[in-house]
Amino acid sequence: MSKVRIGIIGTGYIGNVHARIYARESRAEVAALYDIVPEKARKTAASVGGKVCGSREELFENCDAVLVTTPNKTHTEIASHAVAEGKHVFCEKPFSIGLTDAQKLLAVAESSAKVFQVGHNRRFAPVYVKLKELLSADKAHSAHIKMNRGELLNPVWTGDTNVTGGFLYETTIHLFDMMRFQFGEIAELVAYGSQHEYPELDEFSIIFKFKSGFHCTFASSSDASWHFPFERIEVFCHHRTIMTEEMERLLDSKGIDANFETLSWQMTEKEERWGYVQEDKAFLDAVLNGNQPPVTALDGFKSVELVEKVYQAIRTGEKICFD
Amino acid sequence: MSKVRIGIIGTGYIGNVHARIYARESRAEVAALYDIVPEKARKTAASVGGKVCGSREELFENCDAVLVTTPNKTHTEIASHAVAEGKHVFCEKPFSIGLTDAQKLLAVAESSAKVFQVGHNRRFAPVYVKLKELLSADKAHSAHIKMNRGELLNPVWTGDTNVTGGFLYETTIHLFDMMRFQFGEIAELVAYGSQHEYPELDEFSIIFKFKSGFHCTFASSSDASWHFPFERIEVFCHHRTIMTEEMERLLDSKGIDANFETLSWQMTEKEERWGYVQEDKAFLDAVLNGNQPPVTALDGFKSVELVEKVYQAIRTGEKICFD
Amino acid sequence: MSKVRIGIIGTGYIGNVHARIYARESRAEVAALYDIVPEKARKTAASVGGKVCGSREELFENCDAVLVTTPNKTHTEIASHAVAEGKHVFCEKPFSIGLTDAQKLLAVAESSAKVFQVGHNRRFAPVYVKLKELLSADKAHSAHIKMNRGELLNPVWTGDTNVTGGFLYETTIHLFDMMRFQFGEIAELVAYGSQHEYPELDEFSIIFKFKSGFHCTFASSSDASWHFPFERIEVFCHHRTIMTEEMERLLDSKGIDANFETLSWQMTEKEERWGYVQEDKAFLDAVLNGNQPPVTALDGFKSVELVEKVYQAIRTGEKICFD
Amino acid sequence: MSKVRIGIIGTGYIGNVHARIYARESRAEVAALYDIVPEKARKTAASVGGKVCGSREELFENCDAVLVTTPNKTHTEIASHAVAEGKHVFCEKPFSIGLTDAQKLLAVAESSAKVFQVGHNRRFAPVYVKLKELLSADKAHSAHIKMNRGELLNPVWTGDTNVTGGFLYETTIHLFDMMRFQFGEIAELVAYGSQHEYPELDEFSIIFKFKSGFHCTFASSSDASWHFPFERIEVFCHHRTIMTEEMERLLDSKGIDANFETLSWQMTEKEERWGYVQEDKAFLDAVLNGNQPPVTALDGFKSVELVEKVYQAIRTGEKICFD
Repeated sequence: MSKVRIGIIGTGYIGNVHARIYARESRAEVAALYDIVPEKARKTAASVGGKVCGSREELFENCDAVLVTTPNKTHTEIASHAVAEGKHVFCEKPFSIGLTDAQKLLAVAESSAKVFQVGHNRRFAPVYVKLKELLSADKAHSAHIKMNRGELLNPVWTGDTNVTGGFLYETTIHLFDMMRFQFGEIAELVAYGSQHEYPELDEFSIIFKFKSGFHCTFASSSDASWHFPFERIEVFCHHRTIMTEEMERLLDSKGIDANFETLSWQMTEKEERWGYVQEDKAFLDAVLNGNQPPVTALDGFKSVELVEKVYQAIRTGEKICFD
Repeated sequence: MSKVRIGIIGTGYIGNVHARIYARESRAEVAALYDIVPEKARKTAASVGGKVCGSREELFENCDAVLVTTPNKTHTEIASHAVAEGKHVFCEKPFSIGLTDAQKLLAVAESSAKVFQVGHNRRFAPVYVKLKELLSADKAHSAHIKMNRGELLNPVWTGDTNVTGGFLYETTIHLFDMMRFQFGEIAELVAYGSQHEYPELDEFSIIFKFKSGFHCTFASSSDASWHFPFERIEVFCHHRTIMTEEMERLLDSKGIDANFETLSWQMTEKEERWGYVQEDKAFLDAVLNGNQPPVTALDGFKSVELVEKVYQAIRTGEKICFD
Repeated sequence: MSKVRIGIIGTGYIGNVHARIYARESRAEVAALYDIVPEKARKTAASVGGKVCGSREELFENCDAVLVTTPNKTHTEIASHAVAEGKHVFCEKPFSIGLTDAQKLLAVAESSAKVFQVGHNRRFAPVYVKLKELLSADKAHSAHIKMNRGELLNPVWTGDTNVTGGFLYETTIHLFDMMRFQFGEIAELVAYGSQHEYPELDEFSIIFKFKSGFHCTFASSSDASWHFPFERIEVFCHHRTIMTEEMERLLDSKGIDANFETLSWQMTEKEERWGYVQEDKAFLDAVLNGNQPPVTALDGFKSVELVEKVYQAIRTGEKICFD
Repeated sequence: MSKVRIGIIGTGYIGNVHARIYARESRAEVAALYDIVPEKARKTAASVGGKVCGSREELFENCDAVLVTTPNKTHTEIASHAVAEGKHVFCEKPFSIGLTDAQKLLAVAESSAKVFQVGHNRRFAPVYVKLKELLSADKAHSAHIKMNRGELLNPVWTGDTNVTGGFLYETTIHLFDMMRFQFGEIAELVAYGSQHEYPELDEFSIIFKFKSGFHCTFASSSDASWHFPFERIEVFCHHRTIMTEEMERLLDSKGIDANFETLSWQMTEKEERWGYVQEDKAFLDAVLNGNQPPVTALDGFKSVELVEKVYQAIRTGEKICFD
């Protein structure tokens, strides 16, 4: 394969982010674009090239790898279609909506001979890579995590559960995946939720207990504010607090005084600071070298499972135990 | 009564904080001091005046109001003694150790015709007074709270459960009381704990659900770090995050952008910034005017009850429901 | 004129920033591109469209307005050429290098019947627009300003005075223009400089006195660090400090306590946060409506004059007075 | 000498700060107190002990060392008197007001066989001790310094030049001394000043050039705001910015990224964080061991000289050169 021919289904915000990155990649080319609003695909093509296709079928004929960057609820069907056509698939988060769909897509993806990667870009963000590196050399005792939004107004569909599948599918799911990446598999969870400004549960208080014995609090609010940092992980180790603030900074306070070190990615362009460049490179690596992608369909499935189990815990008032 | 004659039992760090404040108060005088290490009482007397007494009885004879500023485990017995002698009592936190003692002291205090106030100074700290004022004009949805220490080494007894009654009795109990002050009575709690560096549970993940429907996460670590702020309350309202950072600052981010206002008490002397001056004034007000003190024996009892119920929740793995 | 046909000479970093912005503008199109390294122009064309031209002449034939986004030393000659061809000109900062060239280009620009705008984008950055708005309603007494770089290594030409014309021409000149924008015309300056790591003056301490009586300190270092904020303006008014931190935040502390309000542009995309989108719109407005551009050739000239006068003050050890 | 008998002339705010520190010192005792308002001396005595004296003479009879903690303008006369009586003298800053007085007191102090120390406490503050340590291992290129107040209202005499001798004598003089401590002797200065809210010059822009070639900007405003940090030193080294924020924090950003280390003295009690405890220990050391005090009369004189030369530079519009 000379250059991986990338086909993009869904040329909205995130589709264009990936399009711009692949347009600069020497190992790939943006070959085909499809959107149910053809004008959007044409606009993207004007800026990064690629054939504007009239159907998914036409797109499949013109590419080796498919990016599924459509609204959440369509992921299962479109990604399954792409697998069936023998394509490598990069499926944006969330992997799918609901346990039934997630199980269906997991089965499809695991039956595929090609690469199937899920778009949990935060795993590649330098701040979280650094956190994992620090935690591999020290023992985390517990953590205190929050993942807020300031509103569900912009864009408007963020407040529409028919599109999102529920608030937790929106950005909170990124940190559910992140917890597994940093702290391992989850054993139990308890959760409380309430509904205030939107026609769905919009405030969450959760505790996750991990198989390692590690435990953490997790707060998520849909309409708190965009006050920096609206995404924060504080990890407590022995005489040490390590804190991430969005994907901008990592603060490491070691020892028994109040001193600390700050690593800042302020000078790093956003596409790299948020891990998009690196996840796209990782996808190409997997496609070209045949290795396992760093975020698998199983990872995608498990993040969906966590979302669904939190909702279940709130509905039933019961503790959830994982096998 | 011309000047309230203050007797102080226990002239360690916190006894001296109050001694210095009362020494400047025109409505009171430091009249009598008692410590089981007489040299310590003499040192305090040298700086703020007052008779160094050879026994509690001698102290009671020389004062109208007693400050119980001894180690945690002795509060019940000493405060009961002072009530029995007909004295007004200011009892430092924690009110007592264990539910049995707490119930005993509550009964004693409620039978007293005199004032009985508990030393939850944070209720008087300007930052928390301001938070309560803001929350009285807006509706809190949920909160994310942490209360850490950097170590249990300084002073050495902070790591000795025979002195503290357990880590949660040390400083965490202040924020248990604070939650009731800000958010009302608690309906349920779930908790996870683990033990790492000290011979007791030293890391906690808790969710409190309140009778109002409000819920919050609460993390507490004994040996995280002293990184500012080690004490933080983040309250999420409608398009609003209000955050306190120790007793130094309150940040209020209203609306759907990332702007915020910061109130700072950096220029306020610590004794006032931490509410000690105000709680001592409130105690004198109650003594002189016969009104109810702002932090009652029942408040003291309930903070102890929360500590014990968190430990019980961890021990049993069960959700705790309050009547 | 249906759409303004934009021609871009120099398709390096900043040329591409403008190219991407014009590619999204409905009132303009990227029509022609020229670079002495043709491959660079081709790359830009691939992403935003436009004819790749083999010469400046070919470019002039295919556009109405020219962006001069080449290295500093070529601005005078290229911009003069574009004016001579009757084109609207947007000339990146610095306007030119050296007083002789600056005077020459000023004469050319002022003789043009078309628009001539200089690329001092910071005037359009929301943080500086807000500062100007606040200062129009209050009286500034003095200011304390710094404009640092962390190194002159990336890109390599930043350390080459043959390209930059001297360190002050690099980014410091932006804040020289900003001072005039915020505080008016300058009456006097005194300056000290020293040379440490690069073969040119690389550390500067300056005082500017303005015709209004206002005065400010100004520090600029070429190799301090990228510690946030490396660009900071602190303005002191009556019981008020207003502080900008790069183009990210504005802090406004009014009154005699330590409270303050923070406006943050963290959620704004960089192209807008840095004012590029707005300056390109302003250029189009001037071209289409025939009005004066908001940053004129005279503004460009005066920023160059300030650079040269600071160097002169250091060389001579004398105070510089402007007419 | 068993215990150094301390006599305090002037028992206002700063007199009491030192009184409390000496009251805890095993090598000293607060032996005598004198204030022209006897009630104030009595109040201090009630809290730290010591004989309340009816005259300076009575005080001199009862002490070995005298603290001159009276208003600025009286320092020369009182400190001279104490030297004449053969006492060790600790003279609060400013050393004196005006060059004539400063020269007079310098001659007196240098003729004394006893210790004469000046109260530039900031030299002992951990943040500035640390800065000096870092700068001894790296080469400073230039600096950017500010020293503001939020108002001259509290206490009221801060706005009365008859008491202060002029705004620069208030707190700015501390950082004039600090510059000499950190960067060495000054060779030249240029300065601009203006008058806005108070009946004296209240806004200053200064450049100091040092004998080493080092140079720095220095801004000082009397009524900016108390926004943290109102006292800040930023030192620029090779690929490094070291910044102090009041006496709370030191930030050290080394290398060409935006990372930095923060040392915090937030957990240190104010009397030590501000260097008072350490300067009082140093004074006792000098008294008991006969060594030179760390802040000499000459240091005191030179800080006064800098104040006067800045005022002269503003008056004359001329550069000031030191021998």
